[in-house]
Amino acid sequence: MLESAEIGHRISKAAYAPEELKLREALLNAQWDLSESKKGPVLLLISGVEAGGRGETANKLTEWMDPRHIHVIAFGPPTGDELVRPPAWRYWRALPPAGRVGIFMNAWYNEALVASLRGKLHPDGLREVLDNIRRHEEMLSDEGVVLLKFWIHLSKQDQKERLEKLESDPRTRWRVTREDWAAWRVYSKSHELWEFVLRESSTGKAPWCVVEGTDERYRNLTVGKILLDAMRGTIEARKPKVRSREAPVVAPSVIDNVRLIRELDLSKTLPDNTYERDLEKFRGKLAMLTRDKRFSGRSLITVFEGVDAAGKGGAIRRVTSALDARQYVTVPIAAPTDEERAHPYLWRFWRRIPPQGGIAIFDRSWYGRVLVERVEAFASVADWLRAYGEINQFEEQLTSGGAIIVKFWLQVSKAEQLRRFRAREKVSFKRFKITHEDWRNRGRWNDYEKAVCDMVDRTSTEIAPWTLVEAEDKNYARVKVLKTIVRRLEDALD
Amino acid sequence: MLESAEIGHRISKAAYAPEELKLREALLNAQWDLSESKKGPVLLLISGVEAGGRGETANKLTEWMDPRHIHVIAFGPPTGDELVRPPAWRYWRALPPAGRVGIFMNAWYNEALVASLRGKLHPDGLREVLDNIRRHEEMLSDEGVVLLKFWIHLSKQDQKERLEKLESDPRTRWRVTREDWAAWRVYSKSHELWEFVLRESSTGKAPWCVVEGTDERYRNLTVGKILLDAMRGTIEARKPKVRSREAPVVAPSVIDNVRLIRELDLSKTLPDNTYERDLEKFRGKLAMLTRDKRFSGRSLITVFEGVDAAGKGGAIRRVTSALDARQYVTVPIAAPTDEERAHPYLWRFWRRIPPQGGIAIFDRSWYGRVLVERVEAFASVADWLRAYGEINQFEEQLTSGGAIIVKFWLQVSKAEQLRRFRAREKVSFKRFKITHEDWRNRGRWNDYEKAVCDMVDRTSTEIAPWTLVEAEDKNYARVKVLKTIVRRLEDALD
Repeated sequence: MLESAEIGHRISKAAYAPEELKLREALLNAQWDLSESKKGPVLLLISGVEAGGRGETANKLTEWMDPRHIHVIAFGPPTGDELVRPPAWRYWRALPPAGRVGIFMNAWYNEALVASLRGKLHPDGLREVLDNIRRHEEMLSDEGVVLLKFWIHLSKQDQKERLEKLESDPRTRWRVTREDWAAWRVYSKSHELWEFVLRESSTGKAPWCVVEGTDERYRNLTVGKILLDAMRGTIEARKPKVRSREAPVVAPSVIDNVRLIRELDLSKTLPDNTYERDLEKFRGKLAMLTRDKRFSGRSLITVFEGVDAAGKGGAIRRVTSALDARQYVTVPIAAPTDEERAHPYLWRFWRRIPPQGGIAIFDRSWYGRVLVERVEAFASVADWLRAYGEINQFEEQLTSGGAIIVKFWLQVSKAEQLRRFRAREKVSFKRFKITHEDWRNRGRWNDYEKAVCDMVDRTSTEIAPWTLVEAEDKNYARVKVLKTIVRRLEDALD
Repeated sequence: MLESAEIGHRISKAAYAPEELKLREALLNAQWDLSESKKGPVLLLISGVEAGGRGETANKLTEWMDPRHIHVIAFGPPTGDELVRPPAWRYWRALPPAGRVGIFMNAWYNEALVASLRGKLHPDGLREVLDNIRRHEEMLSDEGVVLLKFWIHLSKQDQKERLEKLESDPRTRWRVTREDWAAWRVYSKSHELWEFVLRESSTGKAPWCVVEGTDERYRNLTVGKILLDAMRGTIEARKPKVRSREAPVVAPSVIDNVRLIRELDLSKTLPDNTYERDLEKFRGKLAMLTRDKRFSGRSLITVFEGVDAAGKGGAIRRVTSALDARQYVTVPIAAPTDEERAHPYLWRFWRRIPPQGGIAIFDRSWYGRVLVERVEAFASVADWLRAYGEINQFEEQLTSGGAIIVKFWLQVSKAEQLRRFRAREKVSFKRFKITHEDWRNRGRWNDYEKAVCDMVDRTSTEIAPWTLVEAEDKNYARVKVLKTIVRRLEDALD
């Protein structure tokens, strides 16, 4: 892939000037139209060889365009907030919203390349990393992010000349480090790796563009024009003239696939005295465990889902009362805000991922995609069907970053739900808790049962299993929740 | 994913009879409509535990439907033709055309599961296999194949009972082997593996459906209904009500990305006497190499692409004249036949893959997708853009099956092409060689140059590099082709 970026592309000064003028105006217009269209975002990943001009390219783009609506982020070794969260967190945090252009310098590819060259990443490991990257990028594309991946390239000879030139000028000497020369000396070995990585991660939805960096006019104009094409393509996105043969996505529906829920023994109860005793016992344990030294390198993420009025709030309060307020945060999830809607659906959850030593309690969660969004057809079949895999990958990233994930589904019978609805309507301070939406959801009871069983089937993993909670009796449910969290923490910290 | 298929789903005889009648009629109708629509095909992969009833399920489906339009293929250990070709070949060969239903028993998943359980596939290796499977299935889906993956499941206890029951009946005793019991004894270990494989290979485009196999009525009805839904969905495929946010696919276009071709030194020539000498020399070597014992476990696949009238035919004849006619086949690629159109685009090439010890010479090839289909907009941007990666994966499968791939692009100047066109028009027996299409392609010269350079950039790999051939002088071109093949064979057989 690199060969044709090693042959000395150049653009003369005379040819460049009028082209630049035209391009600049077109980019500014496209930026405005993109912002109005609320499509995209358009995200540029700029990687490449040392001294190839990655930084200059980014600077030129921001010079050409309106810098208020373009955001350049350079990723170095993780620092501060980044160090105490899963590696992917910083990329999510930096993701621009729809309508904007973002530039990521040395994002996820750089880590893999550096680790490989240093022998810290085995070829098998690299393949796995690239596989995860492909899936991640596919998800971004499916969620509307237009990805442009640029590899700014120099031949071995050109890189040497560039480094020497930078070194010979006192104003730029500081930019050339010993690492740069060390990198140059292993150019040939690196070349093979670049070829492999670029080829394996070039997909239809996120192809690499290799741009020769030797001549800055050529480099800037090429990157600018590809960006312009992509912005125009995003704004005007119309149906392609030629129809693709792509197979329709059909959701499989297994007969009677609701028994996981229906066969829960909802008659389980816990008398008040046992309840009080157990509550104290497990709250005490929880308090100890979350203050344990071994927990400081981990984090706890609990997810509460359940039918309306199943008692999620009450259960959550029994958990939080054992915790230090500085250590935990509860995250109630309602309809997404405008800002959240302008990002891939997992973005709003990534923002709330706790640091090491922290605890996040999600009152409803990312599972909304395969529950309410599925049942109410807010998401297309293709979208919620791919979400199971995306969620599994998300939770894998969290757990490999040290998180302990505990997921609860709270179930009550249809009759008990009705009793609780009626009771809430009578108590004035609880009236706000029962809305039109609750009644509508109740009307879709059977659809929800199906969605819940599919969800549990497809996302209960060894690393993040679901716990089904018989919540007809509040005492029983609350103790089961506490006990489950305690057991999972004990297992994880052992 | 398996939990909810271990709880004893049953359907009573009384409930079953009317359901079966209805389903059968609906399936027959759907089969007819699918055939008329020429959409699909619908491909069922049936895997699962031993004695779960995989075979019975397939038999029931063919009993219900019109057996002339449904094809069941059981894959065991490779035999005969399969042994001497890459592993994927047999799956391609068995792929049903659009409009049909196919059932694959124990296809690609089985190999990976068995190898893992026997310790012959390391977890890293398994991840790589699953990654390849995901990409393969995505490609099939993008090419219109509707994939239904069934896992017919039994709990450990149910499997034991089933095996004992089969053993106790003299008519079925033969079906239970020592391997079945050996498999049962490692049920728990296998269970973990199944969960992992199913979860990692369940995607939006090809999700797994886990069906409990204990009760045959439940099992058959469930599989039948999912199949019916999928067939109906395929036939009626209309736009989803909810729009997906999916990003548009925009092809990046690097400025001046035609220099690889433009800078070829077309003035290279070879005088007749040197030509004759070299021709003899390399033909002799080629004859020896292809008859070498070390070649018997390998195969040779050569691809000839080039501008019209660049001399592909002449070069090919110089190669074949060194070969044993029983050993090689030339494959001229023109517009696809109806049958070929009813399959994914790579299908027609997989059919012609040579066995070990064999040679295939492709006169034009799978690269048509990123050349003529791109330039003439026969394929959508998304389709030809994803093809680069698919082709790289295809060639990887071929080479890891022992093939040596040599790819040529033959280039002449525009002026030389015109001279050859004119000359052909004058010679009566060559007149058939120059058509309206050739003139049309000539009109798209610049588009082709771009497409060729992208193709070389994106598909020239270490395992299957492109060789650009300066073909202005026929002597020079023919010798370069022969020499390149000889060198590649020497390297590969060393």
